[in-house]
Amino acid sequence: MPASACQGFTADDVARECGDLLDGLRATAPLVQCLTNHVASGFTANVLLAVGAAPAMVDIPGEAGAFVAGASGVLVNLGTLNAAQPAAMREAAAAAHDSGTPWVLDPVAVGTLPVRSALAAELVQRRPTLVRGNASEILALAGSGTGGRGVDASVGVDAAHHAAEALAVQTGGAVAVSGPVDLVTDGTGIVRVANGHELLTRVTGAGCALGALMAAFAGLGADPVLAATAGSVVYGVAAENAAKQAGGPGSFASALLDQLAMLTAADVVARARIAVIR
Amino acid sequence: MPASACQGFTADDVARECGDLLDGLRATAPLVQCLTNHVASGFTANVLLAVGAAPAMVDIPGEAGAFVAGASGVLVNLGTLNAAQPAAMREAAAAAHDSGTPWVLDPVAVGTLPVRSALAAELVQRRPTLVRGNASEILALAGSGTGGRGVDASVGVDAAHHAAEALAVQTGGAVAVSGPVDLVTDGTGIVRVANGHELLTRVTGAGCALGALMAAFAGLGADPVLAATAGSVVYGVAAENAAKQAGGPGSFASALLDQLAMLTAADVVARARIAVIR
Amino acid sequence: MPASACQGFTADDVARECGDLLDGLRATAPLVQCLTNHVASGFTANVLLAVGAAPAMVDIPGEAGAFVAGASGVLVNLGTLNAAQPAAMREAAAAAHDSGTPWVLDPVAVGTLPVRSALAAELVQRRPTLVRGNASEILALAGSGTGGRGVDASVGVDAAHHAAEALAVQTGGAVAVSGPVDLVTDGTGIVRVANGHELLTRVTGAGCALGALMAAFAGLGADPVLAATAGSVVYGVAAENAAKQAGGPGSFASALLDQLAMLTAADVVARARIAVIR
Repeated sequence: MPASACQGFTADDVARECGDLLDGLRATAPLVQCLTNHVASGFTANVLLAVGAAPAMVDIPGEAGAFVAGASGVLVNLGTLNAAQPAAMREAAAAAHDSGTPWVLDPVAVGTLPVRSALAAELVQRRPTLVRGNASEILALAGSGTGGRGVDASVGVDAAHHAAEALAVQTGGAVAVSGPVDLVTDGTGIVRVANGHELLTRVTGAGCALGALMAAFAGLGADPVLAATAGSVVYGVAAENAAKQAGGPGSFASALLDQLAMLTAADVVARARIAVIR
Repeated sequence: MPASACQGFTADDVARECGDLLDGLRATAPLVQCLTNHVASGFTANVLLAVGAAPAMVDIPGEAGAFVAGASGVLVNLGTLNAAQPAAMREAAAAAHDSGTPWVLDPVAVGTLPVRSALAAELVQRRPTLVRGNASEILALAGSGTGGRGVDASVGVDAAHHAAEALAVQTGGAVAVSGPVDLVTDGTGIVRVANGHELLTRVTGAGCALGALMAAFAGLGADPVLAATAGSVVYGVAAENAAKQAGGPGSFASALLDQLAMLTAADVVARARIAVIR
Repeated sequence: MPASACQGFTADDVARECGDLLDGLRATAPLVQCLTNHVASGFTANVLLAVGAAPAMVDIPGEAGAFVAGASGVLVNLGTLNAAQPAAMREAAAAAHDSGTPWVLDPVAVGTLPVRSALAAELVQRRPTLVRGNASEILALAGSGTGGRGVDASVGVDAAHHAAEALAVQTGGAVAVSGPVDLVTDGTGIVRVANGHELLTRVTGAGCALGALMAAFAGLGADPVLAATAGSVVYGVAAENAAKQAGGPGSFASALLDQLAMLTAADVVARARIAVIR
């Protein structure tokens, strides 16, 4: 197996890479095509705009595949599959695979729900650059679990460690498991990120939007492990800053967007809580 | 006819029950499955997360019915019926009916609009635990009106009093009519709730989200009249608190989520403005 | 060609008309039917509610056409065409055309994307009262460009000047090109509006919601150029006020709604930055 992008690097090295990626994102405003659910689509686009990326929610058959050619990164999120989205997602994933455009699969609530689970299993064949989910979802997608009770994580991140590695080997990309301490692996290297705040679990679509942010970083051409790590760190530090200003989940969501816009690379380097496990 | 849950109780008794239900919701985080419109879905999920419930927006055919088995309560809101939602709503309502899972029907803008009106009439046969709407909608669903000019109430709550009672007798559940002073009835008992604030009418989906909150309380196993009353009181007191902080409808919506998160059972008991009419 | 509504008027005259339209909107609360995308639908409805209009998101086949009869204005936005929306949009545009109800077409990202581009070309035949878009979109719809890279404007407003005039002559209505300085033309007269703030480009759906606001003003029976100008000025002044309070794009979006609610006709007159070009 090849060495992972983070192997041999210190946590400080990785933090600097994350800061550089944030600067790179601001400099290039990557176009991120999102095929996502109707609950989180507005917040997702606002997260991308706040951080400095350019969202485009092109999610219909006949357009979704063609649009990939101009996109830097693509997000496919299975949260609420309307009648037309599965066909559009097949188009987009195929186009991303064939063109080498980085793409992120967010397998929301896969496991016992049959439509999305079958679609997720099919889409995995298109080798997503990144899969982002909670532990239940990663376990289910890797064939090791039933997906919990829906969108919230009922099992811990550590329980999905081996499933994440196996899934990453299968896709040839990286897998990010979200939780109190995120885990990112490409099957070889492992990075943990402790940034974040409990209030993220009180805002709908907070995880969905993180997937879009990871697609933006992957769209810069970053190694998948670094792209996912940068997403977790940038989002997590902004969330920590937002929580200091917030009186609850409503003002937190608003402050999170403000903090994503004002976060600097220096903040990222100073505040990152990264561990390079191997 | 059986006695209603609130008959023989004082307003203070009911207020204490509402406070207990809020504590119960925090203790158990009921999973509320929402099949709702694309305008209000984000805000609805955020209201549920803020108060302490767990939303899951599973709204597609082939999944919506099966998911009910693990849900505590279900919301079916007819606001923007995409191509697949009617089939999903039939599945979910049938599954809720057959399994005895509490479910709430929000018949948005029924009356002259033919697709949703026919679907609402069909879904009523599945005996929703609660129907929540404005006076125009309740009149139309009960067969006594044409539904006004859409989603806003052009007739007063009192005008829908008898229609609400008739509809409740038909469903065997309770009916909640939203307005300046909400009315809840199961055809026998009647409770009025004066909590709330005019700014709720300036936030899209505020009524839709209240339906989801009622589904959360019904999901605790509460009597339908109590579940609807608790929803109105909790939402109304939080809205009153939010209005004190707000500079307009935008900051109000954000503050409402903050206040829902910090509201205590003691606040509910102290601030409830309930009248047990009979 | 007939004289435009603004020809022979000074900028101050037009500003006073805009203020009067804001008062008229508050006095009559026009019902604005929106067929729009799932990303912006919540924010769009909140903008209408904040300013004092009444949104109704009736966007399904079998209902969208019939609802027009009771609506003051209609918005058709092509952002995320779900499986059923094209048929609903055909219904609504035909009904608006046939009944003389003012309607606004927002041709989001038309150009290279085939489904929406074909639909937009078809809908233009129903002679929209207003077309609102960025320069790339107006160029593409007028047959002079390819639409840029999606929803953000990659060409300047001035580049679309002649395309906007040609499109307005074709529809018999007005065309509004959004950018740092908006341009409104009916093919004869030209008005420029310099109000607004850069933070509007950091909030998803900000342009979509402006289209809805223009539909509200057109729904008052205003001349199309005046309706579009009033929309740009009211939105722009509110945005300038909101930016003073905001710490970033999240708090800006919330403050924009607050400011739309509290904006007065006198503010509009005093703060409008209008130029009547001819």
